[in-house]
Amino acid sequence: MIYIADYVVTQNATRDCIYNGAVAVEGNRIADVGFADEVISRRCDDKRLNLGQAVIMPGLINGHTHVAMSALRGYSDDKTLMDWLQKDIFPAEARLTFEIIKISSLFSCTELIRTGCTSFYDMYMMADAVAEAADESGLRAVLGESVSMYFPGLAGKDEETLFERVREYSAKWKDKSRINGAVCPHSVYTTDARLLERCRELADETGFLFSMHMSETKGETQNCLKENGARPLDYCRSLGILSSDTTLYHMVDVNDDDLGIVKECGCAIVHNPASNMKLASGVAPISRMLDFEIPVAIGTDGPASNNSQNMVREMYLASLLQKVDKLDPLQAPAHSILDMATAGGSAALHNKNIGSLEKGKLADFIALDLTSPNMQPVHSIISNIVYSATGLENRLTVVDGQILYKDGEFLTLDYAGLSKQIHAIRDWVYK
Amino acid sequence: MIYIADYVVTQNATRDCIYNGAVAVEGNRIADVGFADEVISRRCDDKRLNLGQAVIMPGLINGHTHVAMSALRGYSDDKTLMDWLQKDIFPAEARLTFEIIKISSLFSCTELIRTGCTSFYDMYMMADAVAEAADESGLRAVLGESVSMYFPGLAGKDEETLFERVREYSAKWKDKSRINGAVCPHSVYTTDARLLERCRELADETGFLFSMHMSETKGETQNCLKENGARPLDYCRSLGILSSDTTLYHMVDVNDDDLGIVKECGCAIVHNPASNMKLASGVAPISRMLDFEIPVAIGTDGPASNNSQNMVREMYLASLLQKVDKLDPLQAPAHSILDMATAGGSAALHNKNIGSLEKGKLADFIALDLTSPNMQPVHSIISNIVYSATGLENRLTVVDGQILYKDGEFLTLDYAGLSKQIHAIRDWVYK
Repeated sequence: MIYIADYVVTQNATRDCIYNGAVAVEGNRIADVGFADEVISRRCDDKRLNLGQAVIMPGLINGHTHVAMSALRGYSDDKTLMDWLQKDIFPAEARLTFEIIKISSLFSCTELIRTGCTSFYDMYMMADAVAEAADESGLRAVLGESVSMYFPGLAGKDEETLFERVREYSAKWKDKSRINGAVCPHSVYTTDARLLERCRELADETGFLFSMHMSETKGETQNCLKENGARPLDYCRSLGILSSDTTLYHMVDVNDDDLGIVKECGCAIVHNPASNMKLASGVAPISRMLDFEIPVAIGTDGPASNNSQNMVREMYLASLLQKVDKLDPLQAPAHSILDMATAGGSAALHNKNIGSLEKGKLADFIALDLTSPNMQPVHSIISNIVYSATGLENRLTVVDGQILYKDGEFLTLDYAGLSKQIHAIRDWVYK
Repeated sequence: MIYIADYVVTQNATRDCIYNGAVAVEGNRIADVGFADEVISRRCDDKRLNLGQAVIMPGLINGHTHVAMSALRGYSDDKTLMDWLQKDIFPAEARLTFEIIKISSLFSCTELIRTGCTSFYDMYMMADAVAEAADESGLRAVLGESVSMYFPGLAGKDEETLFERVREYSAKWKDKSRINGAVCPHSVYTTDARLLERCRELADETGFLFSMHMSETKGETQNCLKENGARPLDYCRSLGILSSDTTLYHMVDVNDDDLGIVKECGCAIVHNPASNMKLASGVAPISRMLDFEIPVAIGTDGPASNNSQNMVREMYLASLLQKVDKLDPLQAPAHSILDMATAGGSAALHNKNIGSLEKGKLADFIALDLTSPNMQPVHSIISNIVYSATGLENRLTVVDGQILYKDGEFLTLDYAGLSKQIHAIRDWVYK
């Protein structure tokens, strides 16, 4: 199949943007990218889908979310992190079931697909429920099991059962190409050294990736200094749990020493501007991270703190937040933000086959409509994507060569049915 | 006509949200608001439009924009304010014509209508061209003539001609109910005391409103202190130009003394979070403004610095920016932000008949679709509007009782024709 549009943004090594471009797909891989007339002449027997006034681009990669929280969207806002967590979120989560987690995750998958995300890195309890949802949706995902000493869910109830469960489902996932796993100690403030070390062992044993919330607030740093005599990153390095398979979320309260540790250990970072703003955690120094040549991705965090999972909106926030924080409009220019949401996401998900439209890469891409008023005229297509789009311009989501969404239709999920289900389980939080 | 939907957000004095609500319209006014079954029983002969899974709410009021700049969307990004203005924007604007201003304004009107704005306060050169566009679009607007000593356009070329032109079109607008005028000295750094005083006289003579960019950056304050021996607001008060007809844009670099002057003079403020972030001007202290009981509206600023004119996105930014700036998630809660975009806008446009859905008010309202994934489930409809919507959920825009947009169709404007025209004039900036 050949997909044709007015613009193709490749995000290849030379960041080519092609006017009147095309992307050809064979199986789950990209077979050709170039000017439409040339691709067509090289593959004249292929079927064609001409999207017209649109831009085809790599699917956006959401580096950090909790998709199972869609039923809690708008349930609790305008509160301090601890009030929000302890009074509202944890009590609701204490009554979670596998079924609720799966349905809420399926519903979030519709939001990701609708707004142009093709891969995501999730962290939640019962990651196998989330994995079932991701698998059914057709999205590509890393599903991390959240581990802590205090939070509700299996981890707190019986650590051995949880670890055994992760071992069991890790064995089952070996043959799943779109689904990968991770072990995710929640944070330094919800684990102890022994549990962190056990999590690292479990990741090594299962071949899973490793990720954590890290240095999200000044309070976390201060508490870690008091409890462990070191800042969070220094403490984690001393435990030997940071490695090149590791992804760190938030990273707001970090200094150059912290970033030196991240660079030394080869970790990737995920920036979460909406969550950091709405929960008033602060501003992550993403430009400084890039100075250290650390891979930086962008993530929405969960729908209960954002309150959406829209990577297009997140890109806009990421750029504007950095500019105003540094009082420098040259910070975080549009092209560097798009790089974070594509190449940065590829690094954060530890998957080199996604994030650009190049021959041989996995066929994960989207197409934004350019006919709505906010997308016209086009002086710079990258500017319109990062600064003018809302996310709902997306009209095509392709993952692994399969069309998941096209012009209002979800092709892998029963959207009407899921809408009914999410309304039905909405009331669970009030019980 | 009775408009029915799952939710009606009234923004009346008690901020009632009605489940299964309806709004009845007679002529250009709201005739009834309440539970759908009760409104229908009171007005059983009226035609009905049932929007189903949607929320009817007051149209959003854009307190500050430059609609004529839509052709410059994405033309210049990631630059300092002075580079952006002097190297890119002013040279382009120097070649503006009445025709370009009108077409670009008409195109912006489609963006405002599409994203749920029903009234806007504009500031630009040749405000009569912008007024023709606003009038044809069906939107409600205040059109301000931008006056300065340096900028391109009529003001710099021949002040007398400009002032005579404003007098002439002010006389013609007397009978236009949706269109009002304003005299807008651009700022303290592009005018002198004599010109500011002449602008005030012109506003008083024509009965027009009065507005200015004010205290946008620290540099503006420092320069005004040097040139005039006073901070911008103190300087303007001493000239006697601030009054209860006055609206002040940006207001980033302000202290309590400044806000005391604003309160004393009875002015309204428009907050522009996207522009202040993208141009790295800083963060306006909107919570402090509310402490002073000053009316605060929200505005997008022009599409060349935002890069859209989407009041839904602007509400989200306004809330999140304040929270992260104060490191306090209780700042700028959702309901206060919606108040700014409705009641605050009513104050900034000096029009008491807009901003809420109440019997006797002007029939300006919109309806957001609640079927898209980001808008489900609904725990708090206000939360979903402010924190989860993108703006493109809007499916109905009614101004003065007239439907301007419904489910993809623009009823007052030739959208396909305007799209072609905006693409054609796009190239003017490169000539």
